[in-house]
Amino acid sequence: MRTEIAKLGEFGLINHLTKDIKFHNSSSLLGVGDDAAILDFCGKQTIVTTDLLLEGIHFDLTYVPLTHLGYKSAIVNFSDIYAMNARPTQITVSIGVSKRFSVEDLEDLYAGIRLACDRHGVDLVGGDTSASMTGLCISITCIGEGENGKIVKRSGAKENDLICVSGDLGAAYMGLQLLEREKAVFAGMKEEDIQPDFAGKEYLIERQLKPEARKDIIELLATKGIIPTSMMDISDGLSSELIHICKASNCGCRVFEEHIPIDYQTALLAEEFNMSLTTCAMNGGEDYELLFTVPLELHELVSKLEGIRIIGHITKPELGMNLVTRDGVEVALKAQGFQHEM
Amino acid sequence: MRTEIAKLGEFGLINHLTKDIKFHNSSSLLGVGDDAAILDFCGKQTIVTTDLLLEGIHFDLTYVPLTHLGYKSAIVNFSDIYAMNARPTQITVSIGVSKRFSVEDLEDLYAGIRLACDRHGVDLVGGDTSASMTGLCISITCIGEGENGKIVKRSGAKENDLICVSGDLGAAYMGLQLLEREKAVFAGMKEEDIQPDFAGKEYLIERQLKPEARKDIIELLATKGIIPTSMMDISDGLSSELIHICKASNCGCRVFEEHIPIDYQTALLAEEFNMSLTTCAMNGGEDYELLFTVPLELHELVSKLEGIRIIGHITKPELGMNLVTRDGVEVALKAQGFQHEM
Repeated sequence: MRTEIAKLGEFGLINHLTKDIKFHNSSSLLGVGDDAAILDFCGKQTIVTTDLLLEGIHFDLTYVPLTHLGYKSAIVNFSDIYAMNARPTQITVSIGVSKRFSVEDLEDLYAGIRLACDRHGVDLVGGDTSASMTGLCISITCIGEGENGKIVKRSGAKENDLICVSGDLGAAYMGLQLLEREKAVFAGMKEEDIQPDFAGKEYLIERQLKPEARKDIIELLATKGIIPTSMMDISDGLSSELIHICKASNCGCRVFEEHIPIDYQTALLAEEFNMSLTTCAMNGGEDYELLFTVPLELHELVSKLEGIRIIGHITKPELGMNLVTRDGVEVALKAQGFQHEM
Repeated sequence: MRTEIAKLGEFGLINHLTKDIKFHNSSSLLGVGDDAAILDFCGKQTIVTTDLLLEGIHFDLTYVPLTHLGYKSAIVNFSDIYAMNARPTQITVSIGVSKRFSVEDLEDLYAGIRLACDRHGVDLVGGDTSASMTGLCISITCIGEGENGKIVKRSGAKENDLICVSGDLGAAYMGLQLLEREKAVFAGMKEEDIQPDFAGKEYLIERQLKPEARKDIIELLATKGIIPTSMMDISDGLSSELIHICKASNCGCRVFEEHIPIDYQTALLAEEFNMSLTTCAMNGGEDYELLFTVPLELHELVSKLEGIRIIGHITKPELGMNLVTRDGVEVALKAQGFQHEM
């Protein structure tokens, strides 16, 4: 079924897409349908982050289903809020769409956004829809709440702090390589003939198309009474984020290649593609894992936490930011990030 | 001078554009440079609104200078916050730009945004910049604070309430017609040969390119102790906004053509273009004036306020939403809004 967006009109479309939204947070007083939303954060600090996703730059609809795109668009914003040791509570979603998209397409996009919201207890409180001359454009702003004194910035890392990461790295990047390869293989074929074989590589595809924001890690740290000294989410790659933390905290760092957590599917595919596994893990990006530092005294406690790996430590700034390879050679970290981020 | 954006890189660009930003609000605790901004609104309610502006849909860079575009992009968001009887305090700005734009171009855009922020005491606390495959894309989210119990929604209008508007209507729309005509006249000419003559029509051009958000009206109402029963800003046209208020408040309305405030430049140009003046004023849009309702008892007080015009009153819902023409004929209101809004 295909309903033309013009049939509903702007306000009809917003109504249609948001009519049965229910709130999760007592701080959400008024949502979609007025000039602005009304929130009440008394006693908490308010966290705000925003992300702009553009077709052809941040996503390729050839292989990204709209539901997944919606889910991921919301998740990457939640991830930024968790990375402040806070909890996402509201989002606003603005979309620009060309005539190529139908109401059903946007329902799929919103279904993904709302699934992410439901899983993370976030309320969709506003937004804007508009025509676009070209591709799809998604802008999400996420608001969250943090406890006074427990919000974690990039700037608090201190000499001797331990550097930790959650989960594993490089898988989302390898998933992207895989999707790009299949896209090239199937270029020019009819849609019904395309049967990509991702057997044994599902994890990589899922990490790229349906990343998760590490709410569980934030909750785990809270349970253990751990407040990191600095924290970021890994969106542009570990190297890039380590450099951000070191610069913001005026310190150096030393991380060890052998401690970087990598899934075996990532390692297998890097070998198949003849790519450097460490480069994929250090610079791949889009893992949305958490990178954080904790005081050295917490070594025993943190080393026992499941899903968290200590990968190195913070040093004096004059020692620089280095990766120690398996051969014991120190290599200066380079921020490469993602090409699409300019 | 033209600096390629690639020379600065994403983080360099954000730093460059935001490095000397100073905060106006004690609620802004941390701005650009971390995963998210930190705000503290204890004791107030938080208001959030967002707008997405796309080249070719919402603006035409043939005749819109980037500084003006930045200014207007911020102002339209502030206007939404004022329309809740609240005060804008923070914005986040996300932009998508193609290679066609230089760093200097973005400096101009930001100069306009920052001028608007400075004039309205708003802090720029975050954002995102990204490449774009095509045109310029600007997404702004604005946060504001309102006093508990004094925030005004669309839904509070009651039978017999007076309907009021600030300023005058239709001028921004006539300014757009003028700019479009000049664009057609000068199409194909070299930039240095284009000398459009807007003498005597400066007000219309300014209303289109450099609209203002009516902070002064919100302050005036507060000074007089007036809390409107409902309020909106006029972005899509008076008819459309009246319909929104009536639907949200479950009521009808009767407004009088002879009371609609119109500037003489608007009237002169409508005649020159052979357009219906009332249609321009009712459906033109982009005036960013305030439309609000107050209880009938305030008639004497409100009728004395400079810059505010009583244009009609709220009725029972079964009486419908009508414009009474100069001939005394009742015509049902139609929402036309702006074509670009889909």
